[in-house]
Amino acid sequence: MNIGNASLIGGAQVRGEGKTFRAVEAATGNGLEPAFASATPGDVERACALADAAFDTYRETSLEDRAAFLEAIARNLLDLGDDLIVRCMAESGLPRARLEGERGRTVGQLRMFAEVVRSGAFLGLRVDPAQPGRKPLPRPDLRLRRIAVGPVAVFGASNFPLAFSVAGGDTASAFAAGCPVVAKAHSAHPGTAWLVGTAVQKAVQECGLPEGTFSLLLASNRDVGQRLVADPRIAAVAFTGSRAGGTALMHTAASRPVPIPVYAEMSSINPVVLLPAALEARGSDIGRAFAGSLTLGSGQFCTNPGLILAVEGPGLDGFLDAASAALAEIQAATMLTPGIHKAYCAGVAALGANPAVTTLARGLAGGTHQGQAALFSTTAEAFLSDHTLAEEVFGAASLVVRCPDLATIRAVLERLEGQLTAAVHLDEADHDAARALMPVLERRVGRILVNGFGTGVEVGHAMVHGGPYPATSDGRTTSVGSLAIDRFLRPVSYQDLPDALLPDALSAANPLGLLRLEDGRLTA
Amino acid sequence: MNIGNASLIGGAQVRGEGKTFRAVEAATGNGLEPAFASATPGDVERACALADAAFDTYRETSLEDRAAFLEAIARNLLDLGDDLIVRCMAESGLPRARLEGERGRTVGQLRMFAEVVRSGAFLGLRVDPAQPGRKPLPRPDLRLRRIAVGPVAVFGASNFPLAFSVAGGDTASAFAAGCPVVAKAHSAHPGTAWLVGTAVQKAVQECGLPEGTFSLLLASNRDVGQRLVADPRIAAVAFTGSRAGGTALMHTAASRPVPIPVYAEMSSINPVVLLPAALEARGSDIGRAFAGSLTLGSGQFCTNPGLILAVEGPGLDGFLDAASAALAEIQAATMLTPGIHKAYCAGVAALGANPAVTTLARGLAGGTHQGQAALFSTTAEAFLSDHTLAEEVFGAASLVVRCPDLATIRAVLERLEGQLTAAVHLDEADHDAARALMPVLERRVGRILVNGFGTGVEVGHAMVHGGPYPATSDGRTTSVGSLAIDRFLRPVSYQDLPDALLPDALSAANPLGLLRLEDGRLTA
Repeated sequence: MNIGNASLIGGAQVRGEGKTFRAVEAATGNGLEPAFASATPGDVERACALADAAFDTYRETSLEDRAAFLEAIARNLLDLGDDLIVRCMAESGLPRARLEGERGRTVGQLRMFAEVVRSGAFLGLRVDPAQPGRKPLPRPDLRLRRIAVGPVAVFGASNFPLAFSVAGGDTASAFAAGCPVVAKAHSAHPGTAWLVGTAVQKAVQECGLPEGTFSLLLASNRDVGQRLVADPRIAAVAFTGSRAGGTALMHTAASRPVPIPVYAEMSSINPVVLLPAALEARGSDIGRAFAGSLTLGSGQFCTNPGLILAVEGPGLDGFLDAASAALAEIQAATMLTPGIHKAYCAGVAALGANPAVTTLARGLAGGTHQGQAALFSTTAEAFLSDHTLAEEVFGAASLVVRCPDLATIRAVLERLEGQLTAAVHLDEADHDAARALMPVLERRVGRILVNGFGTGVEVGHAMVHGGPYPATSDGRTTSVGSLAIDRFLRPVSYQDLPDALLPDALSAANPLGLLRLEDGRLTA
Repeated sequence: MNIGNASLIGGAQVRGEGKTFRAVEAATGNGLEPAFASATPGDVERACALADAAFDTYRETSLEDRAAFLEAIARNLLDLGDDLIVRCMAESGLPRARLEGERGRTVGQLRMFAEVVRSGAFLGLRVDPAQPGRKPLPRPDLRLRRIAVGPVAVFGASNFPLAFSVAGGDTASAFAAGCPVVAKAHSAHPGTAWLVGTAVQKAVQECGLPEGTFSLLLASNRDVGQRLVADPRIAAVAFTGSRAGGTALMHTAASRPVPIPVYAEMSSINPVVLLPAALEARGSDIGRAFAGSLTLGSGQFCTNPGLILAVEGPGLDGFLDAASAALAEIQAATMLTPGIHKAYCAGVAALGANPAVTTLARGLAGGTHQGQAALFSTTAEAFLSDHTLAEEVFGAASLVVRCPDLATIRAVLERLEGQLTAAVHLDEADHDAARALMPVLERRVGRILVNGFGTGVEVGHAMVHGGPYPATSDGRTTSVGSLAIDRFLRPVSYQDLPDALLPDALSAANPLGLLRLEDGRLTA
């Protein structure tokens, strides 16, 4: 399949006149065909104008039409066939099985949001009927629905080239809410982005939607993204990436004449607490499982277990021995980009050179662009006195903090920044200790899990992939799961409107048969 | 009843060592007893430390205990009796009937939130049970609840000394969500704030809650408020006031090492569209009703109708004649503060001096601190070319924009900033015209109402008192009505937790009998 070299702006392919750039083959560092041309400021402007023009039509599509659109994207994505997987493997360095799985997840997310749309529950309908006889004043008729916030800028993630990029969770939830999307492709996988973009563009056409419902901007530099966020027609931003990138977008969004929300998922070291009884009973098993989780996808997950907290003793020794032994046999794996590999190596080198840090194990060495796993340890005292030890090293590196007692584990947790996840390994004898930690964890993380690792992020109704700053820019939300739609909605109230002017979802007869909160009681 | 002169910090009364200040009698400009001492930076620090210490206990109070606390506040507020009304009349210049009504509304809000808490619906419970046999990977058990975000800073409003101040809607919804509150009294009504604060403080004691659940800071300057918002233990901010005040807090909140959400309700001119058939049929009636709405509470409502849009013609003439005649007989009324009165006079003078503006009517002149109603008109052309004409004049002043046709009304609406409300007066023959305006209004306002004015803000489930920036800092929310609780919650997901460690609301047997979304279906 040919990969086009143009941004997709509405229904057109527009070869930008900005600087040209190539995707880089992750495994070799070589440039790939074709040469892409970066979008120009005029391209950004045109995409935003089209999105704004599409907004009122798109946001009032019927629930069924909108669901069908999401399903059409899923179908078109699968229709790209192996060309998508092959291109994505080259650009990301991720293996086939992972990317086939990720494609399945991406398609699954789109279909889940189709069902979310059909149910209509996201509309948050509320009806407080008039009470003309109420004293001292009559009560007006009030009806509330949530509407889409407006066009959304979506920034593709480097580490999920399918599931959190052009047609990933952010785009799916924005579309589900009724928002047009202007996506900015990640410069590490423009070919993948272009292919996926054509699948979305085709779905827009097949479903007879306004062309501005979707645009895709290709660019090698940050200027295009900053312009996109600054454009007055953009109403919200979704981003997955580095803290520097996310906070730069937050700053731009907050400095606009009209500030807008930014949903940036940025960084997390995902503490893992190993409680004494569990460690004693099965420290080695946990150690082996940890090594597997740490090195999954070369450690390039936002939920990678980057920090282990445990009390010194034979249980911890068993864990460390098993984890170290397992790690020592793990093959190095190609990282997403040469830049990410370089940053990983630098982070690992800095930890290794820290006099308070001991290198416990390294994975097998690999090629030029391959990340070699690393396990370090330090003392709680050192950790608490050196904040650089709490910084994320993106990749398969983790730091074990040896603690003298449970109180110290708690003290370390209390000093941590906001996190996406925290895991606790425990047995029944650890329940009291775990219970005491719950409030500390709840205040700092979006997801607490027991006897597992955070690297599997289930796409469902009860998932929270979010967490207090700086794990995300806005801890009130999730970027994975059906609740992610909430990010792109705002409530509007209608008072004393004649039925003929009300949206169908709110009209007296409830012709769509939707769940509504009527006078405070849920009614269908 | 004696009015204390001290901030209420946890269970104590703490006479601050900051600059002393007095409340000013609105009607006379004279200082009132006692002299209050402004809170110091140390007082802010102590209030925040206590709030933080109270948070984990308070957020885990049972639904019933938390509801009882809200009801205790309501009861204690009523127990203050006429002393509260008398003091509030002196400080605000508002008449007895209005303040008795506002007290009723304040008590009603607290009781409504007690019911909201009892229902447990705000917890947003979701359960996706484990599917151990799922292929290719088992599904973990995932359970989600929303928890309180943390201590909230509440800034009292000048124009609702009871319903949007120390124990007003922001405080009630924050308490309902499980957040301790540190309130900053508005410097215009410190005595009222102190009285209400003692009612809350007493409820905290009666209910056996941690003392830091509530504190009240008195201060004459902005420094205390800025310090409060900058304190790392504060997790969210609620504010009602001027745009300058709100944006200053937004800036402070966004500049923190950990940025936090600000819910600021700031300014609105609340456009009123008069459609042709309605104007022709009953222009005079609408004009009289408008004059009443405009001058209610001396025009000091956030939802005051400050902008009228209509097509030229005999219908509009009838409206203007009736509105002008009614206005000319309306008594001037004491405004909230000498400063607000001064700003009102300056705004009215600027409109009157604008060569493109005609003064249509003035109300009766009054005393030194009384606002004299004012009605102006201009052309659409002038309005579109001079942005100062779209600025809020807080008080009983309104500007009529004469439009040549409906398309011009639309064009004017499209140029407006975000608003709290928009009203449309219409008859059946106007339905097509109204329908065409709906998308324009939905994009710009939080509440659309028909054949009425926005000045009555019903406290219910379907109310939105919010709107796009700069009507509020965050158009995704409301500050009035039961949905206001959403501002102070964030979701947390629990994966594979043993039942013994789950919060009761999420445990397998659902012992609290709460509504939960189980596998995507609502179940009790």
